[in-house]
Amino acid sequence: MTQTARLMDGAGLAGRIVEECTSRAAALTESTGQAPCLATVLVGEDPASVTYVRMKRSRSAKAGILSRHVELPATTTTKELVGAITALSEDPAVHGILLQHPVGEHIDERAAFEAIAPEKDVDGVTMHSFAAMSFGLPGFQSCTPGGIMRLLDAYDVDLTGKHAVVVGRSAILGKPAGMLLLDRNATVTYCHSRTRDLSSIVKEADVLVAAVGRARFIHGDDIKPGAVVIDAGYNAGNVGDVDFDSAKTRASLITPVPGGVGPMTIAVLLAQTVDAAERQLGVAER
Amino acid sequence: MTQTARLMDGAGLAGRIVEECTSRAAALTESTGQAPCLATVLVGEDPASVTYVRMKRSRSAKAGILSRHVELPATTTTKELVGAITALSEDPAVHGILLQHPVGEHIDERAAFEAIAPEKDVDGVTMHSFAAMSFGLPGFQSCTPGGIMRLLDAYDVDLTGKHAVVVGRSAILGKPAGMLLLDRNATVTYCHSRTRDLSSIVKEADVLVAAVGRARFIHGDDIKPGAVVIDAGYNAGNVGDVDFDSAKTRASLITPVPGGVGPMTIAVLLAQTVDAAERQLGVAER
Repeated sequence: MTQTARLMDGAGLAGRIVEECTSRAAALTESTGQAPCLATVLVGEDPASVTYVRMKRSRSAKAGILSRHVELPATTTTKELVGAITALSEDPAVHGILLQHPVGEHIDERAAFEAIAPEKDVDGVTMHSFAAMSFGLPGFQSCTPGGIMRLLDAYDVDLTGKHAVVVGRSAILGKPAGMLLLDRNATVTYCHSRTRDLSSIVKEADVLVAAVGRARFIHGDDIKPGAVVIDAGYNAGNVGDVDFDSAKTRASLITPVPGGVGPMTIAVLLAQTVDAAERQLGVAER
Repeated sequence: MTQTARLMDGAGLAGRIVEECTSRAAALTESTGQAPCLATVLVGEDPASVTYVRMKRSRSAKAGILSRHVELPATTTTKELVGAITALSEDPAVHGILLQHPVGEHIDERAAFEAIAPEKDVDGVTMHSFAAMSFGLPGFQSCTPGGIMRLLDAYDVDLTGKHAVVVGRSAILGKPAGMLLLDRNATVTYCHSRTRDLSSIVKEADVLVAAVGRARFIHGDDIKPGAVVIDAGYNAGNVGDVDFDSAKTRASLITPVPGGVGPMTIAVLLAQTVDAAERQLGVAER
């Protein structure tokens, strides 16, 4: 009776994606004399942000992707930040731009994101990228939703006609995840903090994407037997949004935390940076 | 036992909106010497499209909005159409641009839409406008979803926590309607042609938006008692996507067809054209 779900090995899949990026980056560097270059922009000294950026730069370096790091003081204004990002958008030596966020509350984050040229938006945060994901058009994906889709594909999850429930509606995670699932012919429900009777909706999910940022917010009792459970949460103490121990007795496939969605996010960032460089250097077909 | 839903009078509300547009257009013309101007672009001679454009121009004229009509042959290429629209985007005498669609299949409709400057996208079709609707940012709404939201507001429908089911996922109707409902704190489900067991999902809808374009596709038996039913369909024979006679015995509020959503679409187009003109002529606060 205590079925145990198969684990979705995000760490393993991410490793294979990064390996492929590494070969592609090397080939590009050899054929054009230019390595892919990711600009990372950090405003202020928030310790978590500092750590994330350092990790992204170190992973890039290992894959043969240069990084150009721009550090700005916490007092940076929107205008200054937009100026710095615009300069990177216009710099032909930079192929991708990552603005580490959240930025300070005094900054108009949306204005800063929109200064990223769509062809360099390898983190998938611009309005253009969101609409492209929503309309099934070519473009960069938000990295975590993009990672979720690659995980689902790696485990041959057929989405057509399935009921996918996305809990969370942020601009870079919940909303684009739902749009990507809809584009793959899932029936998609968005739930959030104002949803009434969340439990009964979650119970209908063939595919559940938890993206609320609340530790063990979703309990196994609410998981439909056989569901695919994607936990995009990452809370204090390495705990996801789903109560893993109870959920794994009901799900057919489940992402662990850590080692599930998390590693996919960086892998997609690197893959999209290489994509961007290939296109800008005239090597890619697309 | 045979409850009868209250009708949502789109024609009446649209009339009041157009009246307000007319005064605003007159005031703008008087204060700036320039009337609001809507450019309408028609490719080919599809009879339905010809009729729609004629109607939009005639309504504009009645409201004191000038129209600049651009007619292009059916053989127009994407490049030519993009060129014509770009010229209108750059013309300071034009405040809003409407590309009548669908355009011919040989034309890249998305490329044509994207040639519309966001500040002139009074029909709400660009990627920028879609993302703005999705993120709750200032911008123009797709006219039909915008009309639906105004109707819901006019009848004081509280959306927070309600389950809104949108049947249909087109880029200008279903998708933006769902995003606007989500932004107003509804729990939102997108259904479409690949949805399994549509009937059981529709039965959960506190607010139902039917936008599939199939006559009487949704039957009253599937309407939750007391639901608010928005019928955005307009099929041959003036028939909506909802079977009105059976639905009205269960819904609390329902839009008739015709006279419900339809008139709201043009009203929003005119209102957004006046908004655009006010902003471009430096009269608006926003």
